Amino acid sequence: MFLQNCWYVAAWEHELKETPLLARTIIGQPVVLYKAANGTPVAMADRCCHRLAPLSRGRLEGDNVRCMYHGLLYAPDGACIEIPGQKAIPRIARVKTFAVAARNKLIWIWMGDAVSADRSLIPDTYALDHPDWRYRPGYVRFGADYRYILDNLLDFSHLSYVHAATLGGSDLIAKAKAEVEPFEDGVRIRRLTLNSPQPPFAKPFLADGTNVDRWHHYEIRVPGIMSMDSGIQATGTGVPEGVRNNALEFRAYNLVTPETERTSHYFFALAHNFAIDDPSTTEKLHAEVSKAFAEDEAMIEAQQRAIDETPDLQMVVIPADTALVQMRRILEAKLARERSTADAV
Amino acid sequence: MFLQNCWYVAAWEHELKETPLLARTIIGQPVVLYKAANGTPVAMADRCCHRLAPLSRGRLEGDNVRCMYHGLLYAPDGACIEIPGQKAIPRIARVKTFAVAARNKLIWIWMGDAVSADRSLIPDTYALDHPDWRYRPGYVRFGADYRYILDNLLDFSHLSYVHAATLGGSDLIAKAKAEVEPFEDGVRIRRLTLNSPQPPFAKPFLADGTNVDRWHHYEIRVPGIMSMDSGIQATGTGVPEGVRNNALEFRAYNLVTPETERTSHYFFALAHNFAIDDPSTTEKLHAEVSKAFAEDEAMIEAQQRAIDETPDLQMVVIPADTALVQMRRILEAKLARERSTADAV
Amino acid sequence: MFLQNCWYVAAWEHELKETPLLARTIIGQPVVLYKAANGTPVAMADRCCHRLAPLSRGRLEGDNVRCMYHGLLYAPDGACIEIPGQKAIPRIARVKTFAVAARNKLIWIWMGDAVSADRSLIPDTYALDHPDWRYRPGYVRFGADYRYILDNLLDFSHLSYVHAATLGGSDLIAKAKAEVEPFEDGVRIRRLTLNSPQPPFAKPFLADGTNVDRWHHYEIRVPGIMSMDSGIQATGTGVPEGVRNNALEFRAYNLVTPETERTSHYFFALAHNFAIDDPSTTEKLHAEVSKAFAEDEAMIEAQQRAIDETPDLQMVVIPADTALVQMRRILEAKLARERSTADAV
Repeated sequence: MFLQNCWYVAAWEHELKETPLLARTIIGQPVVLYKAANGTPVAMADRCCHRLAPLSRGRLEGDNVRCMYHGLLYAPDGACIEIPGQKAIPRIARVKTFAVAARNKLIWIWMGDAVSADRSLIPDTYALDHPDWRYRPGYVRFGADYRYILDNLLDFSHLSYVHAATLGGSDLIAKAKAEVEPFEDGVRIRRLTLNSPQPPFAKPFLADGTNVDRWHHYEIRVPGIMSMDSGIQATGTGVPEGVRNNALEFRAYNLVTPETERTSHYFFALAHNFAIDDPSTTEKLHAEVSKAFAEDEAMIEAQQRAIDETPDLQMVVIPADTALVQMRRILEAKLARERSTADAV
Repeated sequence: MFLQNCWYVAAWEHELKETPLLARTIIGQPVVLYKAANGTPVAMADRCCHRLAPLSRGRLEGDNVRCMYHGLLYAPDGACIEIPGQKAIPRIARVKTFAVAARNKLIWIWMGDAVSADRSLIPDTYALDHPDWRYRPGYVRFGADYRYILDNLLDFSHLSYVHAATLGGSDLIAKAKAEVEPFEDGVRIRRLTLNSPQPPFAKPFLADGTNVDRWHHYEIRVPGIMSMDSGIQATGTGVPEGVRNNALEFRAYNLVTPETERTSHYFFALAHNFAIDDPSTTEKLHAEVSKAFAEDEAMIEAQQRAIDETPDLQMVVIPADTALVQMRRILEAKLARERSTADAV
Repeated sequence: MFLQNCWYVAAWEHELKETPLLARTIIGQPVVLYKAANGTPVAMADRCCHRLAPLSRGRLEGDNVRCMYHGLLYAPDGACIEIPGQKAIPRIARVKTFAVAARNKLIWIWMGDAVSADRSLIPDTYALDHPDWRYRPGYVRFGADYRYILDNLLDFSHLSYVHAATLGGSDLIAKAKAEVEPFEDGVRIRRLTLNSPQPPFAKPFLADGTNVDRWHHYEIRVPGIMSMDSGIQATGTGVPEGVRNNALEFRAYNLVTPETERTSHYFFALAHNFAIDDPSTTEKLHAEVSKAFAEDEAMIEAQQRAIDETPDLQMVVIPADTALVQMRRILEAKLARERSTADAV
């Protein structure tokens, strides 16, 4: 079961420049995405209404899409406007469309009823389009239920183990206590890791040998939108008191969109505000964080296979699970609300 | 559900020369095919009656087949005639056989009751074995329900889009109106496309630049036997009146045999009666039509995946679907008749 | 359905030296295997109790295993002894362990209740650790139900056909009559093949051209433990009377452990007591028998696919099936006994 009435990331904006008709399955529904001539994104069901051929195999003609099986032509509002060889076009000849919006280099989609798609609810990702910040847009496809990806993001103790050689570098992250605060749409988490060895991914950007303090302050909101303020600073220069002093600062976005029950899209960016005139810094950080997400992918897919192979095994809940238990509760409540609204209709 | 009591193409005759024991699944049933010394084709269930090992992994010994698991030997009538190490052979030690016939370079098989297999019902494919015609035998395996392949053949408007770069070359084919005439065993279709640009596949054989008239007159009969009279001729030289005048003429056979519910055999030939002493013409035409069927394969398999992923979507029927609606009706009626006969037995 | 209360081969001992944490699925249950510092083998469920991540992706720390997702640490008895970041460890934080034993270079596992695991029941495989015998440990994974592998081993008539080019070399093996004697835990089989051409695999070790007598005397006990005394000797030198005279003698172990309903582990060794100071003899024999088991694999997997594709086909029982019918009966009786004991509990 997936939430319908919320904004999902459908694509990075640059993907629509590279692929005229982008096929993407979102919460189990096949969608074709493209940009109209004026730059507005368009999203419609990736199925010709006639014989169900994918429109993503079609041809963009101006702002319209032609199915390349038997030639039906669709306008951006989903209406069929031409059937070769016949004059009358039945009213039912149309495909479903979805509300979409471009915002900060991302294309967002609302899979539920388009009239309820409130653009003011699109989550804030300001650092993705801001002169002070640099990043490379990232993407991985996970062979796992999106909820296991959220679980992973909700408990950073895994940095000490899964990411020992990249983002972690010490078991102190796992030992640090996280503060967890639920809110209506998700969970806020604050974690300070003090006086720790330098994490491998940041060593090139830190003075030799000094221990560091780290902060990971983030929120994750349904359906799977994580935005984080994180950083690293020499120990003793003020992190516990909240003073930023020659820190390496990051804004990270980890944006999870379910593809199917067992696969997920994972859009990510690690934005930095230091060395912003040095593209190689951006490249190096992107390479490191990509390596880390490949580590997550391997672990989460192994976990998914494990669960599928032995579905009757119970999980033992431990205190580190506080945030994920809260998040699951919020998600379930929202799903239940959508179901009861649907039943009422 | 598949029709049982009809002739299916099982193989090209040349395949039985290249592979002594040919394994082929037809309407879900595994069959082993071979040629006896006198040239007669033999078809039996591809399962040793003992431990169900495939006989196609066996050894042809004269006209008999030996299972290479434990050595049981079968005669062409399916009877086990030797079990190594024992004298008595139980009567039930036999495998099912099927009626088969070689005709015009094709091997035909009747999957239903062999006693009802009337060879006079084998469809006519004369141009496959006639001194005036040349062709190369073709084969593709489609990852799709055979009915979607029939649908494709029943609506040539797709030539304008799927085959824009091969058989089509213009949207005039889709705009031309087809005459559709159902008969007991299938559908006859006549389509004239007048004053059209030359189709890409035929350009090497036509005078530069002239527009052409084209005809596609064909019938498709159950289970999936299409035979076509088609051709191309300079516009204004007589096609609408039925006059053939320096035409490029073709006889095309597209022969669909279901393999499983989701896969199909597709035997094809495009026979020509011009330049018959130039093998390179035959090669070029075969290459072009093979390219076109790869285009069909990509589209039909995409359609099949689309239908499997979103099975609840309805198809919108348009006038161009007349022939395929008729054909489905004929097929359903024949299936219903077989079911009621089976129930009565 | 698999037997639980019996010894299965889990691994060759050398595998635990090569892989610190060996993942292996046995009768459908994922297990992680390792050796403690004192050499004792340990086996536990390959699932962290917290989020079900596979422990085989973890880290061996002394005799304990750390899950590399969130860092939980397990002792060899399955108890969780550390959860990073918290002091209290819930009692339910533990994983299941299994009785294991190293014996004659093999690691044996008892998947049922560990208290009933009687080490005196571990089958005898003395030649695997004996100064008079040499062999190379072998392993193949079969894509088939383990019972079809047992069937194969229970009827050596297949040597004449499946292994015509390796272990067989003549149809006389299939024609020789096997004596079959069931006992409580399995079946004993004796087969003499007299005055036969030399089998291809043994030609390098025999004098040119002489015909040979062969014996295959073996037992197979549940769940799938075959041990064989076999050999080859010049015809006329005493085999029918039981005299061994310049014979090539072998002890063969073929040890089948179900992995899942459709896949099986197959551990094998062909031990010889001639030319024991010549490692190339051991290599050559291992290479030949590996080739033969690849032949079995191809046939048995083809049989498995055949059965899965046409599950309604019946098998015709012939006299050569005596041993396998007996074996199935013994296996079914033991399975029924385990089920009724489980029901009573």
